[in-house]
Amino acid sequence: MSKYLLVPQTIITADANDSIFHNKCLEIENGVITGIHENSTSVISGFQGEVVHLDNKVLIPGFVQTHIHLCQTLFRGLADDMELLDWLQKRIFPCENSHDPASLKSAAQLGIYELTMGGTTCLLDMGTMRHQETIFDELIGSGMRAVAGKCMIDQNDLYPSFKSTTKAELDYTYELANAYHNIAEGRIRYGFAPRFVLSCTEELLKETRAMMDDFTDSIYHTHSSENKGEIQEVRRLHNRENIDYFNSINVLGDHTVLAHCIHVNDHEVDLLRSTRTRVAHCPSSNMKLASGIAPIHRYLQEGVHVSLGADGAPCNNTLSAFNEMRLAALLQKPFHGPTVMDAKTVFRLATIEGAKALHVDSLVGSIEIGKKADLCILDLSDPTFSVSPDDEALYSNIVYAATAARVTDVMINGAWVVRKGEHQIYEKDKVYSTAKAELKNVLQRVQNS
Amino acid sequence: MSKYLLVPQTIITADANDSIFHNKCLEIENGVITGIHENSTSVISGFQGEVVHLDNKVLIPGFVQTHIHLCQTLFRGLADDMELLDWLQKRIFPCENSHDPASLKSAAQLGIYELTMGGTTCLLDMGTMRHQETIFDELIGSGMRAVAGKCMIDQNDLYPSFKSTTKAELDYTYELANAYHNIAEGRIRYGFAPRFVLSCTEELLKETRAMMDDFTDSIYHTHSSENKGEIQEVRRLHNRENIDYFNSINVLGDHTVLAHCIHVNDHEVDLLRSTRTRVAHCPSSNMKLASGIAPIHRYLQEGVHVSLGADGAPCNNTLSAFNEMRLAALLQKPFHGPTVMDAKTVFRLATIEGAKALHVDSLVGSIEIGKKADLCILDLSDPTFSVSPDDEALYSNIVYAATAARVTDVMINGAWVVRKGEHQIYEKDKVYSTAKAELKNVLQRVQNS
Repeated sequence: MSKYLLVPQTIITADANDSIFHNKCLEIENGVITGIHENSTSVISGFQGEVVHLDNKVLIPGFVQTHIHLCQTLFRGLADDMELLDWLQKRIFPCENSHDPASLKSAAQLGIYELTMGGTTCLLDMGTMRHQETIFDELIGSGMRAVAGKCMIDQNDLYPSFKSTTKAELDYTYELANAYHNIAEGRIRYGFAPRFVLSCTEELLKETRAMMDDFTDSIYHTHSSENKGEIQEVRRLHNRENIDYFNSINVLGDHTVLAHCIHVNDHEVDLLRSTRTRVAHCPSSNMKLASGIAPIHRYLQEGVHVSLGADGAPCNNTLSAFNEMRLAALLQKPFHGPTVMDAKTVFRLATIEGAKALHVDSLVGSIEIGKKADLCILDLSDPTFSVSPDDEALYSNIVYAATAARVTDVMINGAWVVRKGEHQIYEKDKVYSTAKAELKNVLQRVQNS
Repeated sequence: MSKYLLVPQTIITADANDSIFHNKCLEIENGVITGIHENSTSVISGFQGEVVHLDNKVLIPGFVQTHIHLCQTLFRGLADDMELLDWLQKRIFPCENSHDPASLKSAAQLGIYELTMGGTTCLLDMGTMRHQETIFDELIGSGMRAVAGKCMIDQNDLYPSFKSTTKAELDYTYELANAYHNIAEGRIRYGFAPRFVLSCTEELLKETRAMMDDFTDSIYHTHSSENKGEIQEVRRLHNRENIDYFNSINVLGDHTVLAHCIHVNDHEVDLLRSTRTRVAHCPSSNMKLASGIAPIHRYLQEGVHVSLGADGAPCNNTLSAFNEMRLAALLQKPFHGPTVMDAKTVFRLATIEGAKALHVDSLVGSIEIGKKADLCILDLSDPTFSVSPDDEALYSNIVYAATAARVTDVMINGAWVVRKGEHQIYEKDKVYSTAKAELKNVLQRVQNS
């Protein structure tokens, strides 16, 4: 691997002190950050490696998104402004159920293309029922850092053909975890992914948790307390609230990431805190599906761990970390006042807090010597951003004003994935034309099924 | 003026039938849309004028934003995550109060640059206390279509030096309306702009309304019912709710645009409807300042007229119509369900409904033969947008997924303002460097005052 010296205008580290460096340069060797030096002629001229001038650019840690459905990216725009049950029953489940390896590969490419172009360098993906190898292969080839796993479903009243037996789900999952946990220089880890309480038997939920003991630092990834109808049904079936039920079967904990956590009671907030369970907040999705408004300000006040995710493309409709940061910052304010969820706090949720949720924070999530070079480079030198020279305006520019279009370069594990606005792994036109063709194929299969 | 034949892939008209045309071309002569023809070799080869090929592009009406503070654009990023009163007292009023013509010109340029680059072709601007000619001159020179006017303040407890006498305010305003109403081929009209109830005497509010009789199709533009503290104070002073008070002094009506209208009672909703008063909804600002959530779904159901605006850059922090559309669509859903504020409805609020609010809908707001060519051209042919070929996905792409970065070309009144991503009036680097220098000057004057 190459040696790089990156020379940006500003480095925002997201380290414990929220250090911001101006006119410093970042040394990278074999994918690891090995130094942060003064930007001087002697440092630059004496450097044995490639000097990368990033004039007027801002260098930040790559974003870590902790709830994504790559497999749904093909279905963006097919399920807008619909009721949640219709959304699942008439569009999402039939479409996911009709994926073949080619369409799933295309969906994963489309998603990874967008995520990396927008500065996301690490994600937790929910996967889908079948052909999960395809997603892993795409993640490996793309250079993305990921915790991913097959979505597990062993009961499905909404769309009965989209499920499997408990044993088959567990066997296939174990096989996948064996094959894909901790591979590609540690870039890929396994995230066990029972879809949500109502689509899983208790046996499946518990046995999946037990499996994790064989795979150090694997993650338990599921949805919880997203929708009022959902929690009513959980209550009817299990006589408990959703998170309380998860606690009763011992699946909470600091390696568990629960997407959404909108409708929770005081006891459940306490359970999330005391078990150190991670909440993946998905504000665009929560609003678009009318799920509700998660008590994120309360979570942060009470010490519940929160990070951010775009969820699937059909319920967002982007995979942009910028959209999630902006909404996360804005959404709590009408209820708790304008000073909550300030820009710096939200920037941390999208970077280092995401890394903590996935237990990759010793590797990535901030810019510090010894960490892997997962980096995002932004061009904020434009009249549409604050003209204030103050450091605080930097966070504001990123959280309130920037979009994925401002990302110029992205590095994962020391390798360029995006350079000068061009993807280094994918051909944009090919990703796009393949996706159009594969969507047609999926919809044809849905019609024939 | 030139004759153009624009040849996009798709035309979204926002006409009464929400017509969408594929493979048609738009004929423009002397700034007016004169024909919508089939895209055929004979039409193109026989055209006497400039043929503009917009391959794979989507042509839509330019956005109309009905509540903007151009003068605040310099102050973006200076007032984040603050309480509203602090926001006004410590940052916005002192900064506005310290504008001189040079800094105000710079702020207006910065705002108009961003707005036009993002596809906004018409706006209602609140102006500021002094040097309003500067804003008008910039609007005229920029090619923008605008209703604008001096912000009027004749009482100010928060920041006493930022006010004038009632007579001086009225005289200056009348002079400005005389000079700037209905000029620049009708592109510029006057919008009388008493700031809000608490900063205006009743005499000012009423006399301003009376002045409008001398200026056909001028607009009455103010803030209303934005903040709970504000409406309490209005109640204390006038023994009425804000909109009820406006009704009692006869300033409601179909030429009145009220920004925000968040905290209203049933009677006030009825007043807005029966008087045909226009509501300018500013969701980013309402959330960022923690003002509250306007009852927009109810307004639309009850026939209250709604359009969209970005408000000022410090409380947003962009002037992007796309951000306002996305938030307007998302924000009502958690309270009223996922099917409300569908993408097509919201697209209309940002285009034809904005034009109706400003009484320029006979000229612009939709793409129809006989209307002026105020157009925005989008590149949505990218893997980050829906790959579905359905027309519904177009609205979804624009409202839920696009950003200002997707705007490639903008025409106002038949003249290119943005072409192939480059502004045709402003030099980006000059706008930006001037703004940096002028912000420094303003802050120096604030410190010295």
